Amino acid sequence: MKRAHNFCAGPAALPTAVLERAQAEMLDWHGKGLSVMEMSHRSDEYVAIAEKAEQDLRELMNVPNHYKVLFMQGGASQQFAQIPLNLLPEGATADYVETGIWSKKAIEEGRRFGNVNVAASGKSLDYFAIPGQNDWQLTPDAAYLHYCSNETIGGVQFDWVPEVGDVPVVVDMSSDILSRPVDVSQFGMIYAGAQKNIGPSGLVVAIIREDLIGRARAICPTMLDYKTAADNGSMYNTPATYSWYLAGLVFEWVKEQGGVEAMARRNHAKQELLYSTIDASEFYSNPVSKNARSWMNVPFRLADERLDKAFLAGADARGLLNLKGHRSVGGMRASIYNATGLDAVEALVAYMAEFEKEHA
Amino acid sequence: MKRAHNFCAGPAALPTAVLERAQAEMLDWHGKGLSVMEMSHRSDEYVAIAEKAEQDLRELMNVPNHYKVLFMQGGASQQFAQIPLNLLPEGATADYVETGIWSKKAIEEGRRFGNVNVAASGKSLDYFAIPGQNDWQLTPDAAYLHYCSNETIGGVQFDWVPEVGDVPVVVDMSSDILSRPVDVSQFGMIYAGAQKNIGPSGLVVAIIREDLIGRARAICPTMLDYKTAADNGSMYNTPATYSWYLAGLVFEWVKEQGGVEAMARRNHAKQELLYSTIDASEFYSNPVSKNARSWMNVPFRLADERLDKAFLAGADARGLLNLKGHRSVGGMRASIYNATGLDAVEALVAYMAEFEKEHA
Repeated sequence: MKRAHNFCAGPAALPTAVLERAQAEMLDWHGKGLSVMEMSHRSDEYVAIAEKAEQDLRELMNVPNHYKVLFMQGGASQQFAQIPLNLLPEGATADYVETGIWSKKAIEEGRRFGNVNVAASGKSLDYFAIPGQNDWQLTPDAAYLHYCSNETIGGVQFDWVPEVGDVPVVVDMSSDILSRPVDVSQFGMIYAGAQKNIGPSGLVVAIIREDLIGRARAICPTMLDYKTAADNGSMYNTPATYSWYLAGLVFEWVKEQGGVEAMARRNHAKQELLYSTIDASEFYSNPVSKNARSWMNVPFRLADERLDKAFLAGADARGLLNLKGHRSVGGMRASIYNATGLDAVEALVAYMAEFEKEHA
Repeated sequence: MKRAHNFCAGPAALPTAVLERAQAEMLDWHGKGLSVMEMSHRSDEYVAIAEKAEQDLRELMNVPNHYKVLFMQGGASQQFAQIPLNLLPEGATADYVETGIWSKKAIEEGRRFGNVNVAASGKSLDYFAIPGQNDWQLTPDAAYLHYCSNETIGGVQFDWVPEVGDVPVVVDMSSDILSRPVDVSQFGMIYAGAQKNIGPSGLVVAIIREDLIGRARAICPTMLDYKTAADNGSMYNTPATYSWYLAGLVFEWVKEQGGVEAMARRNHAKQELLYSTIDASEFYSNPVSKNARSWMNVPFRLADERLDKAFLAGADARGLLNLKGHRSVGGMRASIYNATGLDAVEALVAYMAEFEKEHA
């Protein structure tokens, strides 16, 4: 068995060590004679697994005590509704920043439940840059400010946190959570679909300040009310137990690697190698402003798109998988989340150089 | 490694053969160098996995072409909101039958979104029997009739399908789907949390007649609209890919065993052995009317509840796990879903006889 270098945007590569452990424990967890998948979520064993996962995430992100950590389902897309249903009172206005496809989807869903003000948009910049906060049109006393810290499709990432006084900042951190340190206390709520830096798809993690819990509108389904999850330790009904367990294994792995600071050093090295390769070449290009380039998702184009197919075929043959860009954008995209190591990026840039030499 | 006999009510036992295959494919699916968990849900490989799972379920249940099969998240509890949000127009009334804790939860959530008529309740029968349909107070032109075919906590199961003319019948089949044949055409919608007879928790399957799709109310979140799932092959956003894959392995396993007819024969033999052991004894008892006894969840009491602890300890020591009754009911409960074989029930009744001899 040879593991490929997997540049998939999501569901993304997981650490081999995590998969090996899950494999070893698949039929018989710690000699109990059953799989984690087959345990009651209310059993002592499973509750310990779930609590350890939460505790490890709290340690990794240094989550203050007055924040709840919730393990839910439905992905970030369900959060796009849950957020206004919980945090946008009727008649109030929420500010949203539009920097690409995911933040735009959040805006569209938000509008179905209340007043949404698009405080800033990268549209006029073709989403290749993020408008500076001086140009934002913020609502005084907005219910919250929503933004997406990393747009996986455009490859655009905030390297700063908006400052909006007492307005709670709600951030979709699906694709860059745990990739570098953040100060949780700057946010009202952080949420992230698991399938990039946390674990398998079907799990979404939210870190939410306690005072923001318990405000859901009457039309909010019980399962979408943050209070339901908070009051029941994310076990109002059966949670996605196996995904939660795998997330716990990933958190342990991140701790073993040295935590988010170590992840940040590795991710910095990875993106620097890849962008510098692109920038040094006339053959490859990336259109994103340097201060908004994503460390996690690196879209790039070949000088002649007729070569795209050959590039992808050669990559596949070398075990460099899932480099095709999103269908809405075209070109290539290398997603280099935590579990994709520097060795994968080195193999990629070696191939890129070789391909350029052959075809330039 | 020795696999225990697992009588957990859910997340429940999975077939050992399924777990072995998942284990073998964990790091490297079919020589591709990656785990199913690490595949894009839009890749050819994953789409084939997902489509085969749906096709196998369609075959197993003989699903007519004018029904959609949807793979969603949030469990049955989220369906308790989705159903009225999709199927109960403002001002209309839905009929619900109350036979235990799960149908009651569906009623409570339904009431948050419209008029709910409890057409029948087992409450006056202590939920030990199901009121016959002649005694039901049905609403003419109800938007739908909702019931739960098997109550996991009380151990009460319908062995018949309500007949309500043109009113769509919506059934929570979480804990008995695939356990015996059903005629899908009798239903408007069948839904089931996966964690009993389908796969791991975090996945919910719905089989819904096409004419019931596209009626969602304005307040229904996009992710909770059946049309969203139906129009996008359950991939509007990233689905619970690994859970869906495992469900597919379970469907294959059920087919290999001979389909739901074979499951029904096995399940009949299992429940007959267990109930006849209970009924033949003065030491064990089950309070449920014989025609409403569940084939899937068998609650039973010891004559002296002070012996409960010793019974459970002895069971654990013999690898007979998770026999403790639900906290709301007490006593014991043996859940004997598809993956729990006759050998497990034989081991259980042997232990029950031994324990009775020792303590009666």
